Amino acid sequence: MGLRIGMGVDFHQLVEGRDLWLGGVKIPHVKGALGHSDADVLLHAICDALLGAACLGDIGVHFPDTDNSFKNIDSKILLAKSAALIHAEGYSIVNIDTALCLQAPKIKPYIPHMQQTIAGILGLTVKDVSIKATTTERMGFVGREEGLMAYATVLLQSV
Amino acid sequence: MGLRIGMGVDFHQLVEGRDLWLGGVKIPHVKGALGHSDADVLLHAICDALLGAACLGDIGVHFPDTDNSFKNIDSKILLAKSAALIHAEGYSIVNIDTALCLQAPKIKPYIPHMQQTIAGILGLTVKDVSIKATTTERMGFVGREEGLMAYATVLLQSV
Amino acid sequence: MGLRIGMGVDFHQLVEGRDLWLGGVKIPHVKGALGHSDADVLLHAICDALLGAACLGDIGVHFPDTDNSFKNIDSKILLAKSAALIHAEGYSIVNIDTALCLQAPKIKPYIPHMQQTIAGILGLTVKDVSIKATTTERMGFVGREEGLMAYATVLLQSV
Repeated sequence: MGLRIGMGVDFHQLVEGRDLWLGGVKIPHVKGALGHSDADVLLHAICDALLGAACLGDIGVHFPDTDNSFKNIDSKILLAKSAALIHAEGYSIVNIDTALCLQAPKIKPYIPHMQQTIAGILGLTVKDVSIKATTTERMGFVGREEGLMAYATVLLQSV
Repeated sequence: MGLRIGMGVDFHQLVEGRDLWLGGVKIPHVKGALGHSDADVLLHAICDALLGAACLGDIGVHFPDTDNSFKNIDSKILLAKSAALIHAEGYSIVNIDTALCLQAPKIKPYIPHMQQTIAGILGLTVKDVSIKATTTERMGFVGREEGLMAYATVLLQSV
Repeated sequence: MGLRIGMGVDFHQLVEGRDLWLGGVKIPHVKGALGHSDADVLLHAICDALLGAACLGDIGVHFPDTDNSFKNIDSKILLAKSAALIHAEGYSIVNIDTALCLQAPKIKPYIPHMQQTIAGILGLTVKDVSIKATTTERMGFVGREEGLMAYATVLLQSV
C-alpha cells in the first residue's frame, strides 16, 4: 500500500514581548507565542503530523525543550529536520491540511506567504499545503486571547 | 496517486433565542448556535475539511461573515457549494468521519437523519458519512454548555 | 479503492481516588481518569476512530455508559471489540496516529509499552501505532489538570 496518515495538535500561550511566528512567517501583533523555540504553533503541528505518520515519535522527543540548542530556534529548521526524518524512512508527502485556531489577529492575508514558506521547505507545491483559520467565537483560552492552537493532518506515501 | 486528506474544526456559541441546526437537521433544544449563517457547526467542519483537502481555502474565504448574502443562510447550501468547488477540481469524496462535541442535548436519535441529509447533498451513501458524538465530561466551554464544537476528516480521490 | 479515513476525540476528568489508565497501561499518578469504564482516553479515541472510519457509530453506541456490563471495564476489551467490528466489515488497519493532551504526568517513558499493548490487541506492529504527547501549556481544563483529552486518526483498507 504505502500510504500513511498522521495528525498533530499544538498549543502556545500568547504573551506580550514576544514575536508572533505562524507558518514560518512573522505576523505583526501586540502579543507573541511563548515557547522554548520561536513557538510557531502551526509548524509544530505539521512537524508532529509528519513524525506521527511515520511513527517516529513527536516534536518533544526530537527537539526537547530541555535542550539549549533549540532555545529560540526558528521552527522552520525543526520542520526541515522533521521532513528529513520521514524522507530517511522512505516516505514522501502527498498533502497537508491544517487549521489555525486564534481569536486575533486576522491571519488570512499572510496565508499565501505561509504556504510558500512551508512548501519551499518541504519540496512541495503550494497546492499541497492547505492552511485554514478560525476563531473559537470568543470561547475558552483561545477566545480570551490567552493562547492559540493548531491542528494538522498529513498523508504520506512510500517513495 | 490521486488521494488527498482534509480536516476541519469549528466552534459556535450556544445562546437562547436561536435554533439549533446540526448536520442539516433542526434539533429541539433550549438554546441554538450563534453565527452569521444558521451556525451549523457540523456542516461547517465538513465544508472546511472538503475545502482543505482540495487546498481551496476555508469557509471564511468562500462564505465571509461580512457578506450579507450569507446572513442566516442554510448551511446545507454552503455544503453543496463546497462540494461543487472540489468537484470542479476533479475530486470525489471517498468517505467522511466527524465528531460533534456538545454537552446537551443528546443528538444520537438525530444522527441517521443527519447522515441522510449530508449524503443526499454530497451524492454519497450514508455509509460514507460517519457522525459521532461525545460530551467533554462537563469541562471547558463545551462542558459548561456555552458552546459546541465539531471535527471532521475527509478522504478525497481524483475522479 | 478500499481506503477509509477515521478520527476520534475523547475527554475525561482527572480526579483523586481513581487509577490513571492510558493506552492500556496503568500510569502512577496522584489522580486518575473518571468514567464508567476505566476511562482510558487514548484507547477510547482509537476505538472511535476505528468505528468512525468504518461508519459503525461510536463508542457510546456500542458500549453505552448506561450498561452495567461495561462498569469499570478494561478499555482494552472495548478496543478488541471495536477491532472485531471493523474486521467483520472487511477492513484492516493501515496505521494509527494519536496525540495525548495532558499537563501531567510525563508519559513518554510509558509510550513503548502502550504501543506494544495496542499493537498486540490489534494485530499490528508497533510501527503502525504512533502515540504522541503534548501539554496545553497550562491553558484550559487540561492545563489546570482538571482533565485530559486524546485525538486519534486511522487509515483503513479493505482486506
